[in-house]
Amino acid sequence: MQLALSLGARGLGNTWPNPAVGCVIVRDDRIVGRGWTQPGGRPHAEVVALSQAGAAAKGATAYVTLEPCSHHGKSPPCADALIAAGIARVVVALTDPDPRVDGGGLAGLRHAGIDVVTGVCEDAARRSHSGFLSRVQQGRPMLSQKLASSFDGRIATGAGESQWITGPDARRVVHGMRARHDAVLIGGATARADDPELTVRGQGAVRQPVRVVLSRGLDLPVESRLVRNLDHAQLWLVHGHTVGDAKVQSWEALGARCLPVLGTSTGLDVLAVMKALAEQGLTRVFSESGGTLTASLLRAGLVDELIGFSAGLVIGADGRPSIGDMSLKRLADAPRFDLQESRVIGGDVMHRWVRRAG
Amino acid sequence: MQLALSLGARGLGNTWPNPAVGCVIVRDDRIVGRGWTQPGGRPHAEVVALSQAGAAAKGATAYVTLEPCSHHGKSPPCADALIAAGIARVVVALTDPDPRVDGGGLAGLRHAGIDVVTGVCEDAARRSHSGFLSRVQQGRPMLSQKLASSFDGRIATGAGESQWITGPDARRVVHGMRARHDAVLIGGATARADDPELTVRGQGAVRQPVRVVLSRGLDLPVESRLVRNLDHAQLWLVHGHTVGDAKVQSWEALGARCLPVLGTSTGLDVLAVMKALAEQGLTRVFSESGGTLTASLLRAGLVDELIGFSAGLVIGADGRPSIGDMSLKRLADAPRFDLQESRVIGGDVMHRWVRRAG
Repeated sequence: MQLALSLGARGLGNTWPNPAVGCVIVRDDRIVGRGWTQPGGRPHAEVVALSQAGAAAKGATAYVTLEPCSHHGKSPPCADALIAAGIARVVVALTDPDPRVDGGGLAGLRHAGIDVVTGVCEDAARRSHSGFLSRVQQGRPMLSQKLASSFDGRIATGAGESQWITGPDARRVVHGMRARHDAVLIGGATARADDPELTVRGQGAVRQPVRVVLSRGLDLPVESRLVRNLDHAQLWLVHGHTVGDAKVQSWEALGARCLPVLGTSTGLDVLAVMKALAEQGLTRVFSESGGTLTASLLRAGLVDELIGFSAGLVIGADGRPSIGDMSLKRLADAPRFDLQESRVIGGDVMHRWVRRAG
Repeated sequence: MQLALSLGARGLGNTWPNPAVGCVIVRDDRIVGRGWTQPGGRPHAEVVALSQAGAAAKGATAYVTLEPCSHHGKSPPCADALIAAGIARVVVALTDPDPRVDGGGLAGLRHAGIDVVTGVCEDAARRSHSGFLSRVQQGRPMLSQKLASSFDGRIATGAGESQWITGPDARRVVHGMRARHDAVLIGGATARADDPELTVRGQGAVRQPVRVVLSRGLDLPVESRLVRNLDHAQLWLVHGHTVGDAKVQSWEALGARCLPVLGTSTGLDVLAVMKALAEQGLTRVFSESGGTLTASLLRAGLVDELIGFSAGLVIGADGRPSIGDMSLKRLADAPRFDLQESRVIGGDVMHRWVRRAG
């Protein structure tokens, strides 16, 4: 199952709206098939592994990180494929909460006389499938928030100078993180200030994550790196305009996709934004937003993972803060996160935290 | 020499104004004596190791982390003691830059026919003796700056609530760090806001570091933990008053030591403060100052080591910053530090940086 989880993780960022599943088929203590969900979400992991195993699948054990699907979607159900191949035993890490599956896959397998075991490495599978689970169970994608800052938590000088605070190794790691998410998200302020590409570079051939920019007024420069890269990476603009108005039409003519959501007095309703992104199929979003949007996401409880890169320089309180006003009344109201990992990357420290439950 | 360095480090914080030296005496591949500078700075490491070795010192090799002294201070010179004991060979990590020694110890040993080797583990010895070297060569103590903050670099909410941001394990590590310094330093604002004890607790019996408070106006509460602990930990107040005026006299009557230095329009001249502390014999100072004083120390280039503790909670830009305004014109002007160490401590991340040379 460890191997199946590690194979499944290869698909992270590439399989949305489908989960990134891994599958290993073992017969007589030998691995006869390995598979993971392919880019775009199809073929599924089980089908890849079964086709590799061929006739050797007969009487074998299949290890799958998520319950095999039982519904006819764009592919025939994997549960049927496992039965047809003559698999004798299926070991599953996690039951699929998708209402179209939810135990149906396992029931079908058992009905066909297959021995089914569940809950093996369930916690690890839950972490690996967190984006898929979040979308199905909460109607929003899993959100990782990246913050690269000075020792004192600043992302730019008072004059706005920000290149470079962290080193080249940290920036390379960030490209890898982008590649393992379905989308990269920023606000209009960051788009205007930094003119970023937001593509994945230096990681070999990958499916580019969707670039999502939140701008209530669609006040973004047309002459920008975001627009210049439209031929190989999607650009979605989440806005507060009326559907089909002139500004929306001009952005759509450029090739951007425009998603309308409700605005508030200060910007867009970030929960509505996340729900809109989930409706479009996104399961894992990597936010590289600036201080104001980051604070909004945190206040709304939407940040599942905080990823900090701390550099060895001091900018001071007159620099730009990594996170804007939180309006906390008491320290006990501060959102809390538990440390998962801390690593030295080049000359910087990376530290990754997940939201504390409850 | 590694062992001698590790023995010497036991004295850090306890030997000022003397260096914390380590000494190992080896004869016929057996360790016959081990010593380190004792609390208060005497007896010296060599004397302790020689007395342990006794007659076995004859013909032995002595490993010493710093050149043995050759001048008659409060103790007779260690170089003479090594000669008298019949030591055949002396291996030294670092030459003593103290003008009273500076090669004199080695010359004396060589003149007595002893084989002398220098420069073994010199870099490690330079780090271990950094406080002593800083005082002798720059006329100021080595300064470590501690900052325990939220993920986003805040040390309190906007309302000033700060207990607790980091966890109990991190706070225990801070007590150990205090114990390895000669003094702990804060500004008047922190003394008034937090009413800290600034003593070392939970570390077994140790010599308490001097507690240094910078307050130009001596505007400190008499009813405070700093004053209540005067029986077992010194309190030095660095101020801008005239020597012997009424306020100074009243603090001296309470048992505090008052050190006058020149003030500036915004506070005390921090370089003058450091020079005054070095004149009083301090070699290693641990600053736990708040945002404003920390920024002054950084701007003046006085911070040799930055020690961050980052906790997994977010306070936001309306909280109090760990470091005040730096008035940087360009990002290139930001003081830069190189990572030495990063460790998980309880639920927090500790990261230690040293000032980049040049």
